[in-house]
Amino acid sequence: MERSKSISMAVIKRLPKYYRYLGELMKNDVDRISSKELGEKIGFTASQIRQDLNCFGDFGQQGYGYNVKELYTQIGCILGLDKGYEAVLIGAGNIGQAVANYTRFEDLGVNIGTIFDVNPKLVGMKIRDIEIRDIDELKETLDSKKIDIGIICVPQKNAQNVADELIRGGVKAMWNFAPVDLVVPSDVKVENVHLSESLMTLIYLLNE
Amino acid sequence: MERSKSISMAVIKRLPKYYRYLGELMKNDVDRISSKELGEKIGFTASQIRQDLNCFGDFGQQGYGYNVKELYTQIGCILGLDKGYEAVLIGAGNIGQAVANYTRFEDLGVNIGTIFDVNPKLVGMKIRDIEIRDIDELKETLDSKKIDIGIICVPQKNAQNVADELIRGGVKAMWNFAPVDLVVPSDVKVENVHLSESLMTLIYLLNE
Repeated sequence: MERSKSISMAVIKRLPKYYRYLGELMKNDVDRISSKELGEKIGFTASQIRQDLNCFGDFGQQGYGYNVKELYTQIGCILGLDKGYEAVLIGAGNIGQAVANYTRFEDLGVNIGTIFDVNPKLVGMKIRDIEIRDIDELKETLDSKKIDIGIICVPQKNAQNVADELIRGGVKAMWNFAPVDLVVPSDVKVENVHLSESLMTLIYLLNE
Repeated sequence: MERSKSISMAVIKRLPKYYRYLGELMKNDVDRISSKELGEKIGFTASQIRQDLNCFGDFGQQGYGYNVKELYTQIGCILGLDKGYEAVLIGAGNIGQAVANYTRFEDLGVNIGTIFDVNPKLVGMKIRDIEIRDIDELKETLDSKKIDIGIICVPQKNAQNVADELIRGGVKAMWNFAPVDLVVPSDVKVENVHLSESLMTLIYLLNE
């Protein structure tokens, strides 16, 4: 899959949405769909959809539309969901436990191999079948195994330290739930889930 | 606080970030800060910050900068955090429990009064001091009390039904954790937390 370097974050952020809608169409046994129909479902214009997909290749066919299963698979490949990823989760608090329990991520090829926490009461326990180990053993795990994704669910004040440790261990992707903007080298990618900020946005909109 | 109708979502989404950084500055006993210094902290340009804040009023003073505490309070008012909000949470699964346990929301003035679930095993239990009630009692609660925010943590297939029920009950803001785009009237605001899509974005960036 050829990829231009200049694809905007806005387009990238829309890809998972296409993927989700196409997955639903497949479940409903829809074989093909026009960009117009797909647009109506998602709430984008047909031309937006064609433009977005054109960034990644030549999909669909004039007068036929898109083959749903094919496009779903292709967008999955573009997103990189056809590979497997090893993840570690740090912080087995409320959010960490919820994330560890969320089996949907396995459908995306992400395997959470180990959970780390500082709390000795949690160490040795399991969430589903994932063992909780002492945070002091994180370095050893990173040294012995290639870890693709670090899921950071620790309190704000510890998040940067954890990120630094992950970066030292060669982790290139951080999924960060701590309310802090991590400082990372340019080859390390961060995707934030900032719940408080999301709720503040909603409160603003409610008052608008 | 006067408010123009034309403020872009991009600006609105940056406000919580300003609020968070100013809160941290206050904690560190910083009394005042220039737009340049604030920009360096947040990773925006000084002119970006001045432009953003100018959407809402006249803040700061040439040669002095911003009074941190004042600006924090003012942004809090703009966001609407100086009022109180009654919320209900629907779906006491993993994500729902994590959200219910997250006490940071109380600092934003949001009180989760009741949790609703379909699972009879959960009904009657409490998360912190919040009672879990049967989903069948949601209508009664909405009829008897003004609820501002509905926090939707149910599975995808039930999310629209729950939203419809909340809308019928007069709820104007939905914080939606279900992987679905809710269909709502124009006076109802939705803020999504779509975890799978966030993780897919990270996977894409990791492969870039």
